[in-house]
Amino acid sequence: GDCSWAWDDHHLEKDNLWATIREEIARDSKAEPICSSFLFSTVLAHNTIEESLAFILANKLDSPVLPATQLMQLFLEAFKSDEIRSDFLADLLATYDRDPACKQYSSCLLYYKGFHAVQTHRVAHYLYRRGRASLAILLQSRASETFHVDIHPNATVGKGVMLDHATGVVMGESTVVGDNVSLLHHVTLGGSGKSTGDRHPKIGSGVLIGAGAVVLGNVKVGNCSKIGAGSVVLADVPPRHVAVGVPARNIPLVGSDTTAPVQDMNQLYDI
Amino acid sequence: GDCSWAWDDHHLEKDNLWATIREEIARDSKAEPICSSFLFSTVLAHNTIEESLAFILANKLDSPVLPATQLMQLFLEAFKSDEIRSDFLADLLATYDRDPACKQYSSCLLYYKGFHAVQTHRVAHYLYRRGRASLAILLQSRASETFHVDIHPNATVGKGVMLDHATGVVMGESTVVGDNVSLLHHVTLGGSGKSTGDRHPKIGSGVLIGAGAVVLGNVKVGNCSKIGAGSVVLADVPPRHVAVGVPARNIPLVGSDTTAPVQDMNQLYDI
Amino acid sequence: GDCSWAWDDHHLEKDNLWATIREEIARDSKAEPICSSFLFSTVLAHNTIEESLAFILANKLDSPVLPATQLMQLFLEAFKSDEIRSDFLADLLATYDRDPACKQYSSCLLYYKGFHAVQTHRVAHYLYRRGRASLAILLQSRASETFHVDIHPNATVGKGVMLDHATGVVMGESTVVGDNVSLLHHVTLGGSGKSTGDRHPKIGSGVLIGAGAVVLGNVKVGNCSKIGAGSVVLADVPPRHVAVGVPARNIPLVGSDTTAPVQDMNQLYDI
Repeated sequence: GDCSWAWDDHHLEKDNLWATIREEIARDSKAEPICSSFLFSTVLAHNTIEESLAFILANKLDSPVLPATQLMQLFLEAFKSDEIRSDFLADLLATYDRDPACKQYSSCLLYYKGFHAVQTHRVAHYLYRRGRASLAILLQSRASETFHVDIHPNATVGKGVMLDHATGVVMGESTVVGDNVSLLHHVTLGGSGKSTGDRHPKIGSGVLIGAGAVVLGNVKVGNCSKIGAGSVVLADVPPRHVAVGVPARNIPLVGSDTTAPVQDMNQLYDI
Repeated sequence: GDCSWAWDDHHLEKDNLWATIREEIARDSKAEPICSSFLFSTVLAHNTIEESLAFILANKLDSPVLPATQLMQLFLEAFKSDEIRSDFLADLLATYDRDPACKQYSSCLLYYKGFHAVQTHRVAHYLYRRGRASLAILLQSRASETFHVDIHPNATVGKGVMLDHATGVVMGESTVVGDNVSLLHHVTLGGSGKSTGDRHPKIGSGVLIGAGAVVLGNVKVGNCSKIGAGSVVLADVPPRHVAVGVPARNIPLVGSDTTAPVQDMNQLYDI
Repeated sequence: GDCSWAWDDHHLEKDNLWATIREEIARDSKAEPICSSFLFSTVLAHNTIEESLAFILANKLDSPVLPATQLMQLFLEAFKSDEIRSDFLADLLATYDRDPACKQYSSCLLYYKGFHAVQTHRVAHYLYRRGRASLAILLQSRASETFHVDIHPNATVGKGVMLDHATGVVMGESTVVGDNVSLLHHVTLGGSGKSTGDRHPKIGSGVLIGAGAVVLGNVKVGNCSKIGAGSVVLADVPPRHVAVGVPARNIPLVGSDTTAPVQDMNQLYDI
């Protein structure tokens, strides 16, 4: 199956998305006056979704280390990048699309720490690539403290990526994650050994990785494959296979169904 | 064995419990003057255990999103419910009863993030059931950020429930947990697939779930059963069985002992 | 192999270490003016590494419960202990030595929550041994909230210990960890059952424990052994063995190589 991400085909256009989020929030604000000042300052007060997201992240990551005002500037600067903007929109739509508990676009924007962690990473990665390693590592550290997700700023993360629940996710320095991937909580994409260089997993597109799975070393997980919850993957997984067990073995995905695992989000497996 | 929870039988009555907690804190406050202002404001200044707990949780969950003063009001309102009150007392007694490292009732009240996460969930659930979904989801999100426990407000949690250590616990939208259950840290009661509706585990009473275990889908774990640490459960577990392995197989609990696993808290298993 | 820790042999002397950290920070501060006030207050303003670390931890653990000023005093008092000082230096050098993503000594000092959690534990342990249990338990609780690492203050932790990524690490009341040990994130050194007394693992020196591994009960893991990611260890592991699987079986470490697993940090295993 083609695992490329194509949010334009089945989703709101960007301008409609922002309008929809504002409508959701206006409704919530009316229903819950106790939240209205918070909902105004995070969403309704802003002209664009980029500005709203920068404000939300800056306030969550705020600390004496780097105050919200300075973080806000950093985030706004990074969000001028077309790539980051289209990535975070794809992530938001992916979450709404794949998580049946996500009933409003605004829930993901305001409340999902997996979404917040990935967007913080995108900014850290942007800085890291521009020679600002120490600032990028500071952001990595604040995201690990705040969202409990530890992604090295050098890791490359595609678009349409969802971290569901997110607590405990780890991605090492030379990790590459494709487009249209979902990782449940506690997933480790880890290195092995003290050697420097390319030592972390390469995850294809359309992949679903179950809760608590550990993938170690410079292994390749093929497009449209799935890794079972609690499995430990130490070797390549071919495309359209499911890897299960400790250590995992690879089993072809059965049937003529060419849906990517990330689309049905089914963590179960038959073996 | 009967797995119902009966804290009145082997524990302090409620009034004695509050008096005992105040005595513990008065003693600690005298021994550690450095903590006395904190111990006064959290415990000694209050007339009831409900007021004390509301104050403790409101301050832990405090943020610009929803300040402590407003949280305190929400918690006090929910704690007028007899059911929530009796549930949190049972949780507190269960923790004291089952965790040998818990040497004072007040330690659980003040310091156990698993206890705090469950009580925050009880309030979120209370609000959710009364049509206040957006506020409930905000509380879920704050609890996930603060206590590293992610429980959907629609999940139903019985009384006498302990989350030990608690980091990383996840319970999805249609989860049901019985009375008198203990979950170690990193336990996932997760859904599978994008279908809405009833898609999460149903955990019986008297059940013990070991560290890092993953239970997926609308499966039934019977009363007085046990799930081994690191196990992945994808199918029903009959009553009085232990489920172990990745994926787990079910083994009858041996011997004439009818003690519920939750009572001896023994995570080990013989296979 | 001899798994004892000997940082003097291959590392900077203590005074050189502090001078090196100040040089790193002076360089970073010049390159990132946005961070300079933070870097000045945490490192450059201090005369010793002890003072710097006390300031860093006090600010991270700061809360209305126990404000940074009082925490700073507690940490400075504990850091007068030669043992704690030499332990935290060994931990810092171990992290620099073993984590290829750690490119500056100062990164570990400022940003690694595993390092922060272990040093907070050392202070909690110091207080606990001096009869200040309630204060020690308060520190344990703050560390669990802040660093997502839950170590009982009675646990004994050797020197040269690294918690890599750290989210979700748990060590129970009677745990003993030797010198020169590395634990990845989500590692549980847990008890079993409600019995009090000696009920937690004893980890030898030179040991490497992979991500998500669970070790339960009063079992002994021998020197220079390794526990595979996601494995569940319920029985003793002899020296120079690797334990893998759920539940784990023990396999001798092959070859004439006498390097401790903690030195090559290789989480992979051949079975």
